[in-house]
Order: sequence, then C-alpha cells, then structure tokens
Amino acid sequence: MTRKILINAFNMNTPVHQTQGLWKHPRDRSSEYTTIKYWQDLARTLERGLFDGIFLADITGVYDVYGASPDAALRNAVQVPNNDPYLLIPVMAAVTEHLGFGVTGSLTYEPPNTFARKMSTLDHLTNGRVGWNIVTGYLNSAAKAAGQVKQTDHDTRYDIAEEYMEIMYKLWEGSWEEDAVCRNVETGVYVDPAKVHRIKHDGEYFKLEGIHLSEPSLQRTPVLYQAGSSSKGQAFAGKHAECAFISSPTKNVMAGTVRKMRAATEQQGRKARDVAIFAMMNVIVGRTNEEAQEKLREYRQYASYEGALTLMSGWTGIDFSSCDPSDPVKHIRNDSMQTAIDRFTIADPNRVWTVGEVAEYLAIGGSGPVIVGSVQEVSDEMQRWVEETGIDGFNLAYTVNPESIADFVDMVVPELQRRGVYKTEYRSGTLREKLFGESPRLQAPHPATKFRI
Amino acid sequence: MTRKILINAFNMNTPVHQTQGLWKHPRDRSSEYTTIKYWQDLARTLERGLFDGIFLADITGVYDVYGASPDAALRNAVQVPNNDPYLLIPVMAAVTEHLGFGVTGSLTYEPPNTFARKMSTLDHLTNGRVGWNIVTGYLNSAAKAAGQVKQTDHDTRYDIAEEYMEIMYKLWEGSWEEDAVCRNVETGVYVDPAKVHRIKHDGEYFKLEGIHLSEPSLQRTPVLYQAGSSSKGQAFAGKHAECAFISSPTKNVMAGTVRKMRAATEQQGRKARDVAIFAMMNVIVGRTNEEAQEKLREYRQYASYEGALTLMSGWTGIDFSSCDPSDPVKHIRNDSMQTAIDRFTIADPNRVWTVGEVAEYLAIGGSGPVIVGSVQEVSDEMQRWVEETGIDGFNLAYTVNPESIADFVDMVVPELQRRGVYKTEYRSGTLREKLFGESPRLQAPHPATKFRI
Repeated sequence: MTRKILINAFNMNTPVHQTQGLWKHPRDRSSEYTTIKYWQDLARTLERGLFDGIFLADITGVYDVYGASPDAALRNAVQVPNNDPYLLIPVMAAVTEHLGFGVTGSLTYEPPNTFARKMSTLDHLTNGRVGWNIVTGYLNSAAKAAGQVKQTDHDTRYDIAEEYMEIMYKLWEGSWEEDAVCRNVETGVYVDPAKVHRIKHDGEYFKLEGIHLSEPSLQRTPVLYQAGSSSKGQAFAGKHAECAFISSPTKNVMAGTVRKMRAATEQQGRKARDVAIFAMMNVIVGRTNEEAQEKLREYRQYASYEGALTLMSGWTGIDFSSCDPSDPVKHIRNDSMQTAIDRFTIADPNRVWTVGEVAEYLAIGGSGPVIVGSVQEVSDEMQRWVEETGIDGFNLAYTVNPESIADFVDMVVPELQRRGVYKTEYRSGTLREKLFGESPRLQAPHPATKFRI
Repeated sequence: MTRKILINAFNMNTPVHQTQGLWKHPRDRSSEYTTIKYWQDLARTLERGLFDGIFLADITGVYDVYGASPDAALRNAVQVPNNDPYLLIPVMAAVTEHLGFGVTGSLTYEPPNTFARKMSTLDHLTNGRVGWNIVTGYLNSAAKAAGQVKQTDHDTRYDIAEEYMEIMYKLWEGSWEEDAVCRNVETGVYVDPAKVHRIKHDGEYFKLEGIHLSEPSLQRTPVLYQAGSSSKGQAFAGKHAECAFISSPTKNVMAGTVRKMRAATEQQGRKARDVAIFAMMNVIVGRTNEEAQEKLREYRQYASYEGALTLMSGWTGIDFSSCDPSDPVKHIRNDSMQTAIDRFTIADPNRVWTVGEVAEYLAIGGSGPVIVGSVQEVSDEMQRWVEETGIDGFNLAYTVNPESIADFVDMVVPELQRRGVYKTEYRSGTLREKLFGESPRLQAPHPATKFRI
C-alpha cells in the first residue's frame, strides 16, 4: 500500500499569518477571524477535503524588532492583532466529525495543572481529535508581556520544557486509571477513589500536588507536535513529538533536516516513522499553469514587503528597517543572522540574496516554499517533495483565505486521490488513530507511557 | 415600567454542581457534560426561556477536607471531575444569538496578558455576550495544584486582585483606541500604530510591558461579576462588579446582604443599582403543589448526604466525616465554623440544626434556598424574594439537568411574563446593554473608565 500524504492546514487566529498584505485582496476573508462563522466555514471546507487537521500557530508577543517598535507589525497586521487559539477548536469540532486540531501552547506562560485540564477538555469535546504543539516561546516581547524581564535562555527553556512534560504525563497518564469513572447508580459511586492517584511533583522549576481534574479523555495525552529546529529542539522532538513541523526552501536542505529528525527519534529508542513530519508549503494552483501564474501575479500586487521584513526581523533579531532592498543578505550577516539563516534557511548556500529578494520570497508563503502550477504540476511537485525528502506530508499555508484552501480541496485533492497517494475517506477513531492507526493512546517506548498506571 | 426579574442559569463543567447525588436520576443528563451536544442543547433551552445568561462556576482544586482526602468528593463527583469552563462558551454562542455567558476565572493562577486576550477572544466570538466572574480562589488544594505551598491569605488575595484588575483595565480599555483598526485597502494600513498604546505596569505583584494582543471587542471589559461576601470582598464588588451573586437561606438575611452591597456600591461613588444582584435559587415546579412535592420526594431518593457534607466540609474547613448526623451544628461550632455559618448562612440564628439536617438542606440546591410548588406558588414566591430583599434576579441552580431548567422555561417563564415581571423578548446589543440598557462599554464612575484612552 502506498503511504498516503498527510495534510494539515496551517492557520492562526489573526488576519495575517504567513503571507503578508493579502488581507487587502478582495476575496480574502481573513479579517472575519473574530467570528465563529469564519472558522466553521473553514473547518467544513477542510473536512470536505479530508484534511488530517488544522494547525493553529500562536504568539503572545509582537514582532517589534523591525524599526525597534511594533508599528510595522501593526500597520501590516503581521500576526497582530491576534486572539486565543484554543477557543476556536470547540466551534470547529461542533461542525466536523473527523478533522483534527493542533494548537500551539507555550508552556512558559501557563500553570501545568490548568493547562492539562484545558487540553483534556478539548480532547473530550472533540472526541479525541486534539493535538498540542509544544513551544517554549521565542519572542522577548512575549516574555515582557508576561511579566518576565527577558526571555529565559534557549537551553534553560528546554530544561523547563522537559520538566513540564513530565508533569503533563503524570497528570494525563498517571492520575486516573482507565476504569476509575464507574457511574454506578446502584452503589452511588461515580468515581472509584482507589483508582484516582494524587500526583506529587517537586522539581527544579515546578512543584505541585493534586489529582488531574479531568476524567480520562480518549487520547489522554493529546497528539504531540513540535517544531524545534535547534539541536536541543530536535532532541526534544525526537523524544516527545508524534508530529513535527519543518520548513525548508529546497528539497535538498529539507532532506537533511528529515534525516536528522529521524535519527533523533531513533536515538530515543523510537522508530524513525513514529514521528510524522509535515513540511510547510504554500500552493497556488490553477486549471493550467498559465492560470496559476496569473493568480500569483495577481496575488503579488497585494503583497507587503514591509510586512515580510517585519516577520523576518522578528525571526532573526535583526532590524531590517535600515537596510536597502539591494543590500545583500550576506553583507549584513552576523552571528545571529547566521543562526537565522540556518534556522529558516531562507537562502541556499550558493546564492547571495538581497534583502528585497528575501522580502519578496517571504511575502507569499512566509518561510515555506511555494508551488505554483497546474493541478498536474502541483501534484507532481508535491509527490517529489515527499519522495525526495522523506517527509510524511504538508502543513499547508494559505495565500488568500479561504480561496487557497478551497482551490486545493477542489482541484488538488481529487488528483492526489486519483493517483492513490491521498486518502479517499477518514479512518475511524481519534486523531492519533487516524494518523498512526494503532491506538488512541501513546505506545511504548514513548516516554509518556512510563507514567501510566 | 415594572423592573424585570433577571435570570441566570447556574452551572459548572462537571457532572455534579450544587445538588448532590442526582446524577443517578434516570432523567439526569449531567454526565454528558463532556460533549458539545449537551451544552448546545442546554443553551438553546435557556435562550428559548429568555434567560439573561448562563453562569459557569469553576474550581481548580478538589473538596478534600471531608475525611481529609478527596475520596468522598470523587465517589460523589462533587464538582470533580471537572473541565475547563471557557471552552464551552464558543459552542453555546454558536447556537444562540442573545444568551449571555458568565465564566469564573481565578486571577490567582493565570498570567494577566493571556487572560485578557482569552476574555477579549470570547467577547469577539460571542458578539459582546461575555462576562467574567472574578474570583481569587479559596481552595488550598487548588493552590497546591498550581504549585503554591498554600493559599495566599485572604486580604492579600484582594490586594493582588486590585492590581490584576488595574492591568486588565489598562489592556482592555487603554491599549487600543476605538478606531485603531482601520483596514484601509488603499493605504495598506490594517492598524494605525499611533492609536495602539503600550501598557507598562510595574506593581507590587505584577510587572508587564506590551500592547493588548486583541483588537477592540464590543464590550472591551467583559461584564464583571463578583461573589465576595467578606467585607473586603464586598468593597471589591462595590468598586468593580456589575453583577453580584449572593446566597442566603432567608429573605431577612438576604435583605441585609443586599443593603450592605448597595451601600458598598454607593461608597464607591456608584449608583446602588449599578450592580445587578442575583440570588442563588433552586426551583422545583409542578402544575400543582402536589405534583411539585412529589417531584421533590422523588428527587430526594437520589440525594447524597455524603456529597452534601463533602461540599460543606470544603466550604467551612471542618471535617464533618467524624460527626454523627444528630450532632447539633452549634455543638461543633468553632471560630472557622462561625465564619462559615455567617458566610453561607446555612443556619438561621434561632434554630439549632443538626449535621444531618444541614446535609439534607444542602443536598438539594446546595447553599441556596429551594422553592417548591405550583406555577402560581413559585411565581408568587420569586416575586416576594425580589420585593422583600431588593435583589434584581436569580441565579438558578438545577436539581435534575436539564429537566429542572426545562420545567422552569416551560412553566414558570410564561407565568412571570403574564404577570409583566419578565421580559417577553431580548433587548438588542451586547450583554451589558441587555442588562443595563446604556452602552456596550462601562460608564463613569466605574474605575475601568479611568484607564480609557
């Protein structure tokens, strides 16, 4: 059986996510993001296209490196204003049956016990369709907004994350036995107290004592997503993640990242394919190549270069507001820029990009590549990405929302199905069963299972 | 014009809220609380009955004073297991147009910036129908579960609350000017940065710097609810609250509480009626008195006395597990019990209650009174409560869910409407406009307005 390509939609509770300036496009509905209808319409479209899930990014700070102020981010609505992502999931779950939900949750800013309850609640309300993208936060502005003097350093954040995960596993897997809820109307016992265990944790960063407040949900631990690209981040993903998000501009670079991630997973005693790797991708499709190119040209008219540089400044820590568009990126490269280029790999090693080119590259599709072409060409290229890089699927961003998604669902999905590389119906069961086919719960040797009672 | 009686439904994301043991009743659906359908059905029923809102209680600890363990709470599902209340609001909002939502949020356990965004998101998704019940937390078990050694002392909690409110007002009222979001497709400006202001707060308990992440919602500050009954709590409510919840066993006791609350409001320079006071109430109604009494008898067969004492032990801090049902409550009274009796006023001053009687009293309806009777009798008695105590309306708990609510909607609501004391249609606008009729936003001299720009 051919391995099926997995597809998530990549979105955020904000009018402008990866693609900059397209909120001005007359068919773009992104500014309706504050309404329930917008998200329910989107969820229905995604389920019609048999998408595995919708993945919601989140930041709790602003991109304020560009011009040393949040002004450019605000002008271009670069991921600001933004709203809470968790609250969208119940309304999308209400109008779908199979669609999965991945939500970005920073463990830096939320107490473990109420966070664990929040995710369990989502797992209940969605009948086991929820996933958690574990992030440690990367914006200084978010740290300041949460009352910290500055961002905790990168390595320490991963130490905190390790401890946080241990508490999560204790709460989700180790507090309630499977049959603790008996609801016995004869004996009057709703929960058998002997089967509910108090968690005690006295660690370096956290200390808590108590039972998990939520009764067992179908998946217990939500499907775990991670997007860390540093070596600490990859080791963390190799240990904990079931899904990983990556972003690379070329197949070659991506193939290397995939190999490293598979190796990191195996180093933790897990099978390489225990982690499903999703690559960020943007698709602009037409019935013909000309139609697609024409769409791209039309879209580009609305692109915001200031918005793109704002995003890039936020990611790299370098203020690009004083650069000339013709400045070569190599010219202004410093240590932190080197890291940024490695991380976002916005430039391939053999090319000197200018600031303007990078901005143009980022404006449509953000840090991910863009495939533009006919249905056949897009499908061919998607298959090549999978075959030549070893990824499991795509995290599909949008250019115009929901047009980009609807185009993909109406044109590309049927072709991928015809080729036998995309599902023709959902598997039954929880998100974990749909993705991995085994069980609603995590299996050994995943570290969560060590805390199971 | 006769002042209309306000009615909220009182509920919680848990199988057992105020009434103990009724989860065993064959028509009780409370154990479906983990599903979206359950809450959407309930919301539709409430809107059919023109309820002003549904008010969601919450605790993040367990009642573990009884028997010095959480066992009795678990056995009887006394507010445990419980799930996150916020996530229910979007799904109920999706199937209603007017129903308001009050949600209990403890400011002790959530960072101000993400909490402010969460409430703004709810205000957006509900089109301005959200309220916040400000609590400072009262369970030691919740403090421990959040990693604190023990509960912060009562007075300090209110000092923290004052500072937290100031930050909330700064974020909700003082960060974004009303027309900051311009979405000008000609100029490409989504937000005018000159109209978005960075909040700086450097206080005793909190420190933060940043803009509010959410764009302005209809109400900005959600409708503020408070239930504090101590003198510090009443002063806090008098200053901040727009709605207050109280609970008293007799009209006489309640009238005194209402007078104190009105006075506390006036002491803050506000009008006495700027705070809408809701009294907790449970109604068991039949077409005749006999039918209602028969319902009560039937319900009582399912009541859990252990559950009631578990709740009472949690509220009072006294372990009632070692008491005999015939022990007089006065006999075991100590300083903390005195406070508890004053607070919950479960005993009137001229009567010596036994532990068993108190348990029986609490088992149906929790700490609030219960009205049992025909449609006429219930309506008469509700009107008397309003007239003789000065309250604005009721916070209606349930005995069997949703039967108790459906009975009330089908029988009592039409009678109250016939009498001209209950609305026959919703007012248009936000929850604040529906309740107070003036503006979607808070008006001077409410302290929030001082932070408005």
